[in-house]
Amino acid sequence: MTTKTPNPLRDPRDKRLPRVAGPCVLVLFGVTGDLSRKKLLPAIYDLANRGLLPPGFSLVGFARRDWDHQDFRQIAYEAVKEHARTPFREDVWRHLAEGMHFVPGEFGDPGAFDALAMAVKELDETRGTGGNYAFYLSIPPKFFPQVVEQLQRSGLAEREPGSWRRVVVEKPFGHDLASAQELNDTVHRVFPEESIFRIDHYLGKETVQNILALRFANTMFEPIWNRSYVDHVQITMAEDIGIGGRAGYYDGIGAARDVIQNHLLQLLALIAMEEPTSFSAEAVRAEKAKILSSVRVPGDLHLATARGQYAAGWQGGVKVRGYLEEDGIPPDTRTETYAAIKLEIDNRRWAGVPFYLRTGKRLSRRVTEVALVFQQAPHLPFSHTDTEELSENTLVMRVQPDEGITLRFGSKVPGTSMEIRDVNMDFAYGESFTESSPEAYERLLLDVLIGDPPLFPRQEEVELSWKVLDPIEEYWAAHGELEQYKSGGYGPESADELMARDGRAWRRL
Amino acid sequence: MTTKTPNPLRDPRDKRLPRVAGPCVLVLFGVTGDLSRKKLLPAIYDLANRGLLPPGFSLVGFARRDWDHQDFRQIAYEAVKEHARTPFREDVWRHLAEGMHFVPGEFGDPGAFDALAMAVKELDETRGTGGNYAFYLSIPPKFFPQVVEQLQRSGLAEREPGSWRRVVVEKPFGHDLASAQELNDTVHRVFPEESIFRIDHYLGKETVQNILALRFANTMFEPIWNRSYVDHVQITMAEDIGIGGRAGYYDGIGAARDVIQNHLLQLLALIAMEEPTSFSAEAVRAEKAKILSSVRVPGDLHLATARGQYAAGWQGGVKVRGYLEEDGIPPDTRTETYAAIKLEIDNRRWAGVPFYLRTGKRLSRRVTEVALVFQQAPHLPFSHTDTEELSENTLVMRVQPDEGITLRFGSKVPGTSMEIRDVNMDFAYGESFTESSPEAYERLLLDVLIGDPPLFPRQEEVELSWKVLDPIEEYWAAHGELEQYKSGGYGPESADELMARDGRAWRRL
Repeated sequence: MTTKTPNPLRDPRDKRLPRVAGPCVLVLFGVTGDLSRKKLLPAIYDLANRGLLPPGFSLVGFARRDWDHQDFRQIAYEAVKEHARTPFREDVWRHLAEGMHFVPGEFGDPGAFDALAMAVKELDETRGTGGNYAFYLSIPPKFFPQVVEQLQRSGLAEREPGSWRRVVVEKPFGHDLASAQELNDTVHRVFPEESIFRIDHYLGKETVQNILALRFANTMFEPIWNRSYVDHVQITMAEDIGIGGRAGYYDGIGAARDVIQNHLLQLLALIAMEEPTSFSAEAVRAEKAKILSSVRVPGDLHLATARGQYAAGWQGGVKVRGYLEEDGIPPDTRTETYAAIKLEIDNRRWAGVPFYLRTGKRLSRRVTEVALVFQQAPHLPFSHTDTEELSENTLVMRVQPDEGITLRFGSKVPGTSMEIRDVNMDFAYGESFTESSPEAYERLLLDVLIGDPPLFPRQEEVELSWKVLDPIEEYWAAHGELEQYKSGGYGPESADELMARDGRAWRRL
Repeated sequence: MTTKTPNPLRDPRDKRLPRVAGPCVLVLFGVTGDLSRKKLLPAIYDLANRGLLPPGFSLVGFARRDWDHQDFRQIAYEAVKEHARTPFREDVWRHLAEGMHFVPGEFGDPGAFDALAMAVKELDETRGTGGNYAFYLSIPPKFFPQVVEQLQRSGLAEREPGSWRRVVVEKPFGHDLASAQELNDTVHRVFPEESIFRIDHYLGKETVQNILALRFANTMFEPIWNRSYVDHVQITMAEDIGIGGRAGYYDGIGAARDVIQNHLLQLLALIAMEEPTSFSAEAVRAEKAKILSSVRVPGDLHLATARGQYAAGWQGGVKVRGYLEEDGIPPDTRTETYAAIKLEIDNRRWAGVPFYLRTGKRLSRRVTEVALVFQQAPHLPFSHTDTEELSENTLVMRVQPDEGITLRFGSKVPGTSMEIRDVNMDFAYGESFTESSPEAYERLLLDVLIGDPPLFPRQEEVELSWKVLDPIEEYWAAHGELEQYKSGGYGPESADELMARDGRAWRRL
């Protein structure tokens, strides 16, 4: 027994059919980058393999390389062979490769964009792509103004009646409210808001989408999903890796801008929002925006935040360097690699319930999860001593790894006395469904090509998130302590103290 | 983190110690029977093996056999070797066997009871059992008057100051209200109510006791444990076996008296009762009695009940006989082997929520469970068609086999559309605890010897249960249809129709 949400842009009479993209060209800027090779090209192949791309689908790569079409296809072939989720099928690949073209050029070069315009127009004629173009800007934001301007100048951004233009951007969506607004203004000069798809790949993950299914397709969770029963919420994204080769990107940005502003605040919005009137993009985004505009840092920033930098240590049996010793990092940098923030939501449902967000690199374990920690039972009719207490009921939604849901509750210990101990009840995505989870990028790319925007944050959400983070970043810049924490551990002590002051503790990583 | 309920009769300063019985003699009437061999003798050994019996513990067998002590010990030895739960340890056995005595005799023979009285007095002197005697009547109720009278006449029932006498009775506690009252009167003539321990071995099972832990040691279940969220409750005890060699006992009794009056109504009481002020026997029994006195058969008995007899069929690849062809069963008997009853509870928490109880023999599978079936979500923000619907959230407490808890809820199917499907979240006792569950009889025998009565139904509960069942039995005797159902199947169609009239269905066996 199932219920489906059809793509709202398709004829409702079609709703039993799989969601398939219509004729279009996807233009990929930054096709030589890591994201393109590891995620985007494999996801495109996987969509093709699952029959979700139209026959004439065409992919144009654009980059500053002296490649021809065949070089591009070879690079893509290797990426697909190495990273695709679904089995390699020669016929699917050959069909996809026929539609793959490459245009070399600089982001500021008018000639290159004229060549690009000619290439896609030719595809419209030879492959029936109907003048529908998606531009995926997998490039640093500093190049956005140039690329957007060139798209306009060359006529590529100009929509003919009955066709569409969409532009896809990756985070960072600015580094504060002002820069985010500037970035939005840049893109808006050429593309209207409804054509802009901001990728937050966390929102493409099954468990994240399942938060909404869990809450609103069931009876038993919503009655306790509020301040009457929830003690607090913990949202964690812990990484075991360091910054790797991303020094140039990461330094000056830091953990809060890199993860909290987008991923964690989006998770918070999905956990806390009211039921949307429907699952249309407009309705879901409206509810998320309501939550984000109600978020507040409670009290003193000194007491409600913590941050740190990873120091040298051991991880997985290997000695690793501290952040300040990483290649390309200035030895006096004040960028944090760990951030914890306590937030509250000023509305009737959540008033007084703290939401604790934390993220960090070089922690003991890789895990992303949301945990609703419930209040203790108001009264225990069992006799008990002060030292032997139950912990709180907890509902954990695991985003990665081992996507699933765990419920922690008290159960009687087998034996002849009434002893209670916490146990786990578990649901694992991987074990419960024969369907394998599509990669987040498969889902999101298909949504872009179909024009289905609920999973993409809109400008208002981005700006509201910065409004939450800006005062914290300003405080940190002016006064913020920066604690060194040992690689492979649980993060800075100041983060533990943040919780301890409230009589609580982080879930063990 | 744990919380313990100490035995209320022990010094509260001792509450961290295991519950251990004090010095006593257990006199077992009917020691040659099946129950004694398969359950009681092994449970006594297991308690001894776990160190829960006092050093001088003595066991006296009484039966109409020409045995000496050594014969009794040999029979017990074989029973323990075959059926004990814990490993056999020679030293434990030898120590236990030293305290085992046998007294031969008829239930009406004064001389035999005088001999019994002499035997236990001698044990008091030689083994320090302190004049504390428990009499376990593992015998047909028709012998109760004789045995009770002889216990009185011989002085065995007479308590000396500082010692105790207890009597243990097994179901059936009568076959209707009148006979139950008569039986109670018989026992009460000699033993006060607080000395009577009525064994319902289902109440000794871990999962049954865990119902109370689940409800009252946690925060998240009680808020939805009421008519606002629960659509209905299903309580099932299905057996795959037939009546076996029990024709003489079973015929004339039937499924409702054998199972619903005791096991299922006790389960209903534990599921539905309010939180007791403590876990003392008095407080728990008071809440159970409140529920049992609020139970009502809604509407027409014709529509609210169903019953049947198993016909021949196939079970586990073996052709089996119908009930009417079983040895010792009169071919025209009207005794049911399957009964289903719809009940309601007239109180604020449960008004309008049906409780469906069913039990039967020769069904497809052996299972005992309680299922709370929740209402559908009041509104699904997902689009859906009429034919593709979610089933209801269900919380299943499995009593046997595979003791545990399952939660059924809707989850997003992995893939690029918002399709919802029911999945299970599971907690299995066996996997979550290294402690193995004691047999129900271990728990209950220890409770008898310690004098800890919360798990034993008191007279009031027995009588209230008969008040529920009597009008149904009378209706069945006068008008009841008796449908033949195929062995190895799901029971009579009339039981399915009972549910279908309410727009519901039994959980699949």
